[in-house]
This record gives sequence, C-alpha cells and structure tokens, in this order.
Amino acid sequence: MHRSRLYAILIDAPRDEADAAAAFWSAALGAPARPEPGAPQFIALHDALPGLVAAVQSVDDAPRIHLDIETDDVVAETGRLLGLGAVQVGQWQECRVLRVPGGHLVCVLPVESDPALFDAQARAWP
Amino acid sequence: MHRSRLYAILIDAPRDEADAAAAFWSAALGAPARPEPGAPQFIALHDALPGLVAAVQSVDDAPRIHLDIETDDVVAETGRLLGLGAVQVGQWQECRVLRVPGGHLVCVLPVESDPALFDAQARAWP
Repeated sequence: MHRSRLYAILIDAPRDEADAAAAFWSAALGAPARPEPGAPQFIALHDALPGLVAAVQSVDDAPRIHLDIETDDVVAETGRLLGLGAVQVGQWQECRVLRVPGGHLVCVLPVESDPALFDAQARAWP
Repeated sequence: MHRSRLYAILIDAPRDEADAAAAFWSAALGAPARPEPGAPQFIALHDALPGLVAAVQSVDDAPRIHLDIETDDVVAETGRLLGLGAVQVGQWQECRVLRVPGGHLVCVLPVESDPALFDAQARAWP
C-alpha cells in the first residue's frame, strides 16, 4: 500500500515572461509572490489556493499549467499512473514527469507537505 | 467594490481524448467523474480538490489547463485583470476569456459557487 495526494499547481511560463506572470497571478489572486530559496525557477504564490501549493515556474517551453502529485512511494505511484495510461517522459531529481491521457503533464514527487497534512489528506492505494 | 475568487481548474482535453482524460483523472485522484447536466462538454471530478471545482472539458484545441475566476461583477473583475496585463480573447455566454501575462488562459464568470462559500472566501477589490 502507498499513498498520494494532489500537492501543487504549477503555472509554467516561458523564461522571459515568468516574472510578469508571477506579478500578474500575485495581484490577480491577492497572494504574495515569494521566490523559493534554493530554487530560483520557482516563485511561490503564498496561500493562493486552499490546501494546495501554487507557484509560477520559469520554463524553456510554451506556457502550460501542470499538476504535482506527492507520494510516500514515487516508484509505486508512478507505476499506478502508468497503469492508468500515463507515459513517463522525463525525470528531474527525484521527480518523475508523466504525460497523461489527454496530453497534460503531471509530476510525481516525494512528500513535500507537512506530514500531518499528508496523513490527513492522502489517499491510500492498494 | 466587487469580489472574486478562484473557482475552478479546467483540464481541457482534445475532443477525441476527453473521455480518456476524464477516466484517467478520476482514477488518478480517486474522484468520481460525473457529466454535467446540460453541458456535455464538461465532466466534473467530484471532490477532487479542496474548495475548488475540477473538471475535464472537451475542446477543439491542444491540451491545456486553465483557471476560472468567479465574481459578483464580471465587467469590473475583467477590467481589473485587464489592468494587470491580461487581454480579452473571447467571450462565451457570460464568461470572458482572457490571455494573461505568461500566456495562460483565464475565464471570468458570474458566481457559480454556493453564495455562503463565495461570501466566506472571495476577496474584495477596491
């Protein structure tokens, strides 16, 4: 058995537009924008969403939005999602990047949330 | 003064892949997929996210994810977002479709949530 939960929504913006995107979303949602220490490509949108992390990410790609799923077993969760039709298209540090049915991107990563939040909200999978 | 809140995340999938996308997301998040009465292009993902509506939408376009903002004054909220750098690119029924800095799509629509939820969570803008 392993567990997972939807952890974050990432607003991926082309590098040249990422600062403008972060400024827009911060003002639009009334959420302070805070650079992530040690990860300059991320600008967190503090408390933008109830129970979910929201951030703008600078990418060398077209604009897109992707979702992050956190899990206590990245291999098992990736395997579960592959079984549902996803295809692994990359790996970045401990995160697996999947293209899922419909064509969207999902990242599977180790638990990032407070453990109590994860325990309270994660779903268990056989 | 008017108010707004982030209302929904829409997983827009090409028409031929929308059913597969809905089946994937329903299983991936453990959220029952329910067609929306009277709006066959939408398949709601029930209770997928805390406090936000999530749905797969069938579109005649490339895969994308967009966000919906609900408001008690569509004209004022649209004007506020245009002032932050968004550009209106369409209108669908009462909804305004905006391209926002970074290149993503946002729809501005009249309040859809339960009024008590909207009152509790909406931000007020001068």
